[in-house]
Amino acid sequence: MLDKRIEAAIRRVVGVGGEKFSVPQTLDEAIQYSVFPGGARIRPTILLSVAVACGDDIPSLADAAAAALEMIHCASLVHDDLPCFDNAETRRGKPSVHNKFGESTAVLVGDSLIANAFGVIAKASEKDPLRATKLISLLSKYTGFPNGICAGQAWETETNVDLSAYHQTKTGALFIAATQMGAASAGHDPEPWFELGARIGEAFQVADDLLDVLCSEDETGKPAGQDLVNQRPNAVSAYGVDGAKQKLRNILGGAISSIPSCPGEAKLAEMVKLQSNRLLPKEHMKPVA
Amino acid sequence: MLDKRIEAAIRRVVGVGGEKFSVPQTLDEAIQYSVFPGGARIRPTILLSVAVACGDDIPSLADAAAAALEMIHCASLVHDDLPCFDNAETRRGKPSVHNKFGESTAVLVGDSLIANAFGVIAKASEKDPLRATKLISLLSKYTGFPNGICAGQAWETETNVDLSAYHQTKTGALFIAATQMGAASAGHDPEPWFELGARIGEAFQVADDLLDVLCSEDETGKPAGQDLVNQRPNAVSAYGVDGAKQKLRNILGGAISSIPSCPGEAKLAEMVKLQSNRLLPKEHMKPVA
Repeated sequence: MLDKRIEAAIRRVVGVGGEKFSVPQTLDEAIQYSVFPGGARIRPTILLSVAVACGDDIPSLADAAAAALEMIHCASLVHDDLPCFDNAETRRGKPSVHNKFGESTAVLVGDSLIANAFGVIAKASEKDPLRATKLISLLSKYTGFPNGICAGQAWETETNVDLSAYHQTKTGALFIAATQMGAASAGHDPEPWFELGARIGEAFQVADDLLDVLCSEDETGKPAGQDLVNQRPNAVSAYGVDGAKQKLRNILGGAISSIPSCPGEAKLAEMVKLQSNRLLPKEHMKPVA
Repeated sequence: MLDKRIEAAIRRVVGVGGEKFSVPQTLDEAIQYSVFPGGARIRPTILLSVAVACGDDIPSLADAAAAALEMIHCASLVHDDLPCFDNAETRRGKPSVHNKFGESTAVLVGDSLIANAFGVIAKASEKDPLRATKLISLLSKYTGFPNGICAGQAWETETNVDLSAYHQTKTGALFIAATQMGAASAGHDPEPWFELGARIGEAFQVADDLLDVLCSEDETGKPAGQDLVNQRPNAVSAYGVDGAKQKLRNILGGAISSIPSCPGEAKLAEMVKLQSNRLLPKEHMKPVA
């Protein structure tokens, strides 16, 4: 049910080409290409799930926040794939944006999505401008420097890496944004929602590390074994496959028990379990109970 | 007087490194390098001048808007200098960001500045959240796609270029943002301020085209003759040197007469004249009367 709501929210705000104003066609096409068809839309799903659990009294604002967060995520994928970072030829089973449209267009796709994302929230602010500015503050914080995914990506080229800061910014930031913005979009204090986002982020990091080792390119839609190639820190090299799987289960258990009390607490716990069981292919993990 | 106010406003929001949170040092340093020392800070100067002309009743919000606009401008310079765009080795008389810190850091500098800029305005919103969301809408519009500098840059790689859309987005957008955000930050309707921004933008475009032909790298701090090298549209190739100078004077006259009525109208006209006379070295142009 949230799936359709999310796609509609994103469709409403991405893809303004062809309107009264003459637009550069390649960039227009490349922006669409980078956002549609999407991946699992997991961050906006978490955001809206938390918003619903908190009452979702201004759905149009929650939708805007969800779409904006997914735009930032798509932007980060496009920039991370660039030759100067991962130099990824494919993404979601199709050519990466720079591979298909060229490097300069890929840089502009990311820049455009970042800049437009904030406008999407601002434009949906009429019912509660104060709430909108809180959402924008959170999205800015978890996108930029020093607490956001930009800082996270920057750790990968540092000689002295703070591993905890690296993980929290690189993978955690947009999950923390998801839970905190979900709460804020429904008028709840975002602070108590930090831990749930951080734990989900950790779980995704560990699952991603496992996928990188366990699965082929066909299954994940991106080249396998990249962490080893790029000498990035990885939970599997630290704990072994079984240790990493156990760690993942522990994190998910902690995530569920960290959910702040709110009207839709029980349903939200179910959603987190459901998403948890999608993290790895069935043959690789017993379901989280 | 505005100079000090602008530098203080930018200093307050750029350069958060070294605080409680561990930060990636190279990105921190590169962000500072890209913003300090600045160029003429012309866009925030215009923004604050318009804000003052409109009463400037929430100076902290106008300061935040001015700093945010300059951050976007600096981000655009860093990304435009990248090898996949202008491949510029120098900027403001020193090595360009990617030349000094590497390409991946340069991409992240731009991304961080864009993302942080919106947070700067959101954080300064407490006295009037509605006004802040209007400022964020404007900044987003004139940064992203299809009306912002991202679209402007994208025109440079299109086969069929809409020249008017190209100029309005590439050079005009942030000047229009400057005048409209100046008005909005003081609670005035931004709409009537569009023309002043658009005309100032046009004037800068023509002046830049003239500088590219008339001046050496020593005078401008960037390589000369780049438009010819990169086959970009240029007012001098279209109208000749004298024709372009005449066009510049006409645009500036129009800019001054387009100033909407406001408490500080006369003083603002003086400021525009002052800035106009700095567009080209004295030997190349008679002062605007």
